Amino acid sequence: MEIEIEKSLVIGLDLGGTNSVFGIVDQRGNIKSQTVISSTAYPDFDDYVKASVDALQPALDAVGGIQNVRAMGIGAPNSNYYNGCIENAANLVWSGVVPIAEKFSEALGIPCRVTNDANAAAMGEMTYGVARGMKNFIMITLGTGVGSGIVCDGKIVYGSDGYAGELGHVIMDRSENARDCGCGRKGCLETYTSATGVARTAREFLQRSTEESLLRNLDPEKITSFDVFQAVEKGDKIAAEIFEFTGTMLGRACADFTTFNSPEAFVFFGGLTKAGEYLMAPIRKAFDENVLRNYRGKVKLLTSSLNGSEAAILGASALGWEEGF
Amino acid sequence: MEIEIEKSLVIGLDLGGTNSVFGIVDQRGNIKSQTVISSTAYPDFDDYVKASVDALQPALDAVGGIQNVRAMGIGAPNSNYYNGCIENAANLVWSGVVPIAEKFSEALGIPCRVTNDANAAAMGEMTYGVARGMKNFIMITLGTGVGSGIVCDGKIVYGSDGYAGELGHVIMDRSENARDCGCGRKGCLETYTSATGVARTAREFLQRSTEESLLRNLDPEKITSFDVFQAVEKGDKIAAEIFEFTGTMLGRACADFTTFNSPEAFVFFGGLTKAGEYLMAPIRKAFDENVLRNYRGKVKLLTSSLNGSEAAILGASALGWEEGF
Repeated sequence: MEIEIEKSLVIGLDLGGTNSVFGIVDQRGNIKSQTVISSTAYPDFDDYVKASVDALQPALDAVGGIQNVRAMGIGAPNSNYYNGCIENAANLVWSGVVPIAEKFSEALGIPCRVTNDANAAAMGEMTYGVARGMKNFIMITLGTGVGSGIVCDGKIVYGSDGYAGELGHVIMDRSENARDCGCGRKGCLETYTSATGVARTAREFLQRSTEESLLRNLDPEKITSFDVFQAVEKGDKIAAEIFEFTGTMLGRACADFTTFNSPEAFVFFGGLTKAGEYLMAPIRKAFDENVLRNYRGKVKLLTSSLNGSEAAILGASALGWEEGF
Repeated sequence: MEIEIEKSLVIGLDLGGTNSVFGIVDQRGNIKSQTVISSTAYPDFDDYVKASVDALQPALDAVGGIQNVRAMGIGAPNSNYYNGCIENAANLVWSGVVPIAEKFSEALGIPCRVTNDANAAAMGEMTYGVARGMKNFIMITLGTGVGSGIVCDGKIVYGSDGYAGELGHVIMDRSENARDCGCGRKGCLETYTSATGVARTAREFLQRSTEESLLRNLDPEKITSFDVFQAVEKGDKIAAEIFEFTGTMLGRACADFTTFNSPEAFVFFGGLTKAGEYLMAPIRKAFDENVLRNYRGKVKLLTSSLNGSEAAILGASALGWEEGF
């Protein structure tokens, strides 16, 4: 009698500019083990894949081998779900087009898929987090930039070219005073509501007022969003205004985004969400004031329930459970 | 030997505030016959359905009876694809929630689906028009209001409640001077780029300049977008500026919309598109100037290829061909 092997595990790879973190994950979202290798030490991509598989071997042995693993999911910058490639990623050592899904699939003998960080985060929330059971929601990641993963009818929206879901680059300010964005344009949501956007707001607010603030003890050029968070926790008024401004921008933007796919929820993720109600209260207020009547009272505004350091691995691994994959 | 009946026809119903137009349509989008009844003469909805079926009978007889008809699709205001109902439509004689799909399905003995006008238009373009073969595009209808139908991965985006795709109510101007919208808010795309928005622009532009214009011969309160179109055809400079302003607003908005589903194309529909290059040239210019680099050169900006008076019937009928329906 043959025993059917239940492939009850997946591998998730969070591929960042510095480190690559592999996790072996079960269906409940428990990370059985984590394996880390450098993302920069292998300029030849084939060497990187070989080093990854070698490093993973002990962890795979511990779960009974690769035959217990159904698939691998990868979250990586500038990656394209459709063709399984990383394409011209400025922050990685491999230039041009890297067929990462194919390479790992060959090396491990299991199916492999890749998507960008924000889409992976959305997959993670849908599979293991606050968006479980939701068919229509929008993930907003607040990091160095602002990313988004859009879910319609239970599926990530990839669009015609695999690069859908760039809501961080919707224009929020078309005036002369709009902030310059790294994308070469002005006024993008990202310039106001990313971690760096919050630091920019801090410098602006400190300069245009004379109000006392703990933030005045810091070198303005070195203020981070974490400094603003620490100040607001100590009751700093300017820090509170900075989060109010940030939340208002996000609330207005999300009110507009609601007209696309009438989502059940927005899920916010990233370091900025540590600010809790200092950020979420103005988001909710601006959202309610700006959303079209039809949608009022229908849309939840949530923060991720996943552990920050595990979320990226879980998000990547969630690709491995995709139906029909 | 039993002859298999190929159900090669569908019924499309364009339900407007004044008239209800039924078409019997084949797979190539040929409208075999049209039947019109009043939308206002039957305050009891059951009477309306009965009158519709009676009126349709000769047309059905002419194509060999209802057994040759696969399904019926309805385009109607305030209608919800998910539950098959018209919900609280201000411009129709039936108040509250009307289970239109169920009623027609019972009366005709065929499956029936309903969606709003803009979604029906998108279905029509995808099935018979310029969006044939496209899996990701956005339909923009420029009428009394501005509607939209969003297609992701070959399917209309209905969202969590059936009311996704209200891009006419994305805020384009957050300044004090933003125009009041019928939705109770200010600065919506619709207030600038609908037919009534164009008339509003005309009044504004005439008031703030002293430039000669054919439009000055008209009562400002009665100027229509069609007057502006006629003036631009005669070389009127202010009329050209009005279309430039309108197109610029649309181009900017579509650049933002592109970040949502990275569409292969935008398809514009409605009376305003008669203005041709007077409208499309500024749309293209503003789109190219405002779209994120990733998407540049990838997105087509098209006008509907369907005959205006037939488009609504074709759009509604297209629902009848839906896979698995």
